[in-house]
Amino acid sequence: MHTPSKTVQFDGDLIMHRGGALQSPTIAYETWGTLKGAGENAIILFTGLSPSAHASSTQGNPAAGWWEEMIGSGLPLDTDRYFVICINSLGSCFGSTGPASIDPATGEFYRLTFPTLSLEDVAAGGYEVMRQLGLDKIHTTIGCSMGGMSALAFCVRHPELGGRLLSISSSARALPFSIAVRSLQREMIVRDPLWCGGNYDADDPPVTGQRLARKLGMMTYRSPQEWDLRFGRERSTSEMNSDEMFFGDFAVESYLKSHANRFTGQFDANCYLYLSRASDLFDLAEHGGSIDAGFDKLSLTQAMVVGVETDLLFPIRQQRELAAGLQRSVSDVELVELDCLKGHDSFLVDMDAFRPVVNRFFE
Amino acid sequence: MHTPSKTVQFDGDLIMHRGGALQSPTIAYETWGTLKGAGENAIILFTGLSPSAHASSTQGNPAAGWWEEMIGSGLPLDTDRYFVICINSLGSCFGSTGPASIDPATGEFYRLTFPTLSLEDVAAGGYEVMRQLGLDKIHTTIGCSMGGMSALAFCVRHPELGGRLLSISSSARALPFSIAVRSLQREMIVRDPLWCGGNYDADDPPVTGQRLARKLGMMTYRSPQEWDLRFGRERSTSEMNSDEMFFGDFAVESYLKSHANRFTGQFDANCYLYLSRASDLFDLAEHGGSIDAGFDKLSLTQAMVVGVETDLLFPIRQQRELAAGLQRSVSDVELVELDCLKGHDSFLVDMDAFRPVVNRFFE
Repeated sequence: MHTPSKTVQFDGDLIMHRGGALQSPTIAYETWGTLKGAGENAIILFTGLSPSAHASSTQGNPAAGWWEEMIGSGLPLDTDRYFVICINSLGSCFGSTGPASIDPATGEFYRLTFPTLSLEDVAAGGYEVMRQLGLDKIHTTIGCSMGGMSALAFCVRHPELGGRLLSISSSARALPFSIAVRSLQREMIVRDPLWCGGNYDADDPPVTGQRLARKLGMMTYRSPQEWDLRFGRERSTSEMNSDEMFFGDFAVESYLKSHANRFTGQFDANCYLYLSRASDLFDLAEHGGSIDAGFDKLSLTQAMVVGVETDLLFPIRQQRELAAGLQRSVSDVELVELDCLKGHDSFLVDMDAFRPVVNRFFE
Repeated sequence: MHTPSKTVQFDGDLIMHRGGALQSPTIAYETWGTLKGAGENAIILFTGLSPSAHASSTQGNPAAGWWEEMIGSGLPLDTDRYFVICINSLGSCFGSTGPASIDPATGEFYRLTFPTLSLEDVAAGGYEVMRQLGLDKIHTTIGCSMGGMSALAFCVRHPELGGRLLSISSSARALPFSIAVRSLQREMIVRDPLWCGGNYDADDPPVTGQRLARKLGMMTYRSPQEWDLRFGRERSTSEMNSDEMFFGDFAVESYLKSHANRFTGQFDANCYLYLSRASDLFDLAEHGGSIDAGFDKLSLTQAMVVGVETDLLFPIRQQRELAAGLQRSVSDVELVELDCLKGHDSFLVDMDAFRPVVNRFFE
């Protein structure tokens, strides 16, 4: 399911943003639609922490993608008009080189020898895909969640590409609550004895820590208000939790358990740690010495910032800050504050709210 | 520091709300001021999950209490006028009988043989203290956080006592987000291999799980907005975290670490599990078959509900629900919504906001 259809490989070393290098790393991507010219109709899409490049079904992989209802003929990212490229983040485990890949220099898995990952490196992966596809301009850069920060890194490093930016439920830098959430998620994993300093057995990974981390994740991806309506104090009819004295027949506990179990088998623990930390470290202020200087380096013709009022992880006040910052250098900036109930994940699950907004951006 | 000055012991068995019994359990408490008559000037105070009965300094224990600035001569709980009793919750580890106490029937620690704890049992502990002190009425019942639910349990079980209720940052029942937070905290502890099914070595308790749980606790006790102002993206100058690759020189990470380390030595892990689960289980609707029927059973002359807009754990919408419910049977109900920045913990740390409100209640 997560095997990407296409890859590019860097010609030589990729020098990492915070030091160290990777020897000819691979970047996985998928595309939809037909390229015109040198990128006039190209949309590059950076993902959140956990998705693969499989944003929508393709001929080679008919499984539904994570943004299936957004990309396609007649859909907001209209493949009759646009050439859409989705990038699997460097450091991830779905085709791009990451801590779970083999280091060609040693023949061993990178694991913790992988250099510190930054979202600037993720952006570099996207740029390399573009370059090898022969593009020298871009119509629109899109990023969702962590991908919005990768998109900002991409735009600030490549002002010559111009184009437009669509930032969805993201920010210009992480604030302490989100840092605390992710730091605690990472700690849950590294405190699992099976993590073994990163050298865990592939058949016996630190699933306990990963499940705990995913549960905390779900608590920040959705919203308390949604759960009030959805679960209230409902008890679960399943017996999945009833074997444990201090847990839960509460429906919300069963829900978290099933989500955690589903995710854990899919994502490599070390890759998660690197990407999570990269999200904390990203700060547009690094590009120029201050957050304003970072915004001033952008060279975009239009930007839209979309956020959700119930988002705990990338809160609405950060959407406002991002829009205000973009207004320093971008003449056409629109801030859209959606009152979706489903929190940070709304862009994945509340298509009725997001489709019209993205449609408007492309009209 | 946590040795309470006074205790009472139940004469015989305490039959627990959800089944099982405790043989002559002990309840620890402290008092301030002088009792008049049979309780005309008595204030009974139920605490949050972790505090002891030491709400303020006493002659026997001059250490500052957890509500030092609220209780005393000329303070909002004015000991020149009122006789204040603070109850250490049954199930806790600061003098009252709990899972860390010896079961007189076996001579062994209760540990997980302690019966399921309910906040109704905590309320029963408070009632027994009152009874043995010779009180048959009460001026005011106060509860903070979990203690507000214990206070509601106390009032609904003893309508004959009458009096008034001051509920601070609490609710009539837990909603799914708070249940999820506490459930995950409990899971962090029981997944720590040192927990050993509750039979941990007193000298080697599951501190890793307890620290993780405390960090998540702190994230819900304070507010993201406070942390934006207090920490921003500041880096810590201490090296306390710098030994670990995926953690944090971020100031918020150091802050959480020092809080977690401080708490962990103080609180017994099993006691925490029981009290945490009791908080999830409490539901005023159990008293009468519906939440409204529960409210209708109260017989109070006045009530005040105080909440904080930035509270994540007992959110402001629950304060409104609680006030609306109390209005069914109480003629004089005031709802106070404070715009404190410090979230759920504001009642402990933002005295300038809380003192005038509590003062007004007692004037």
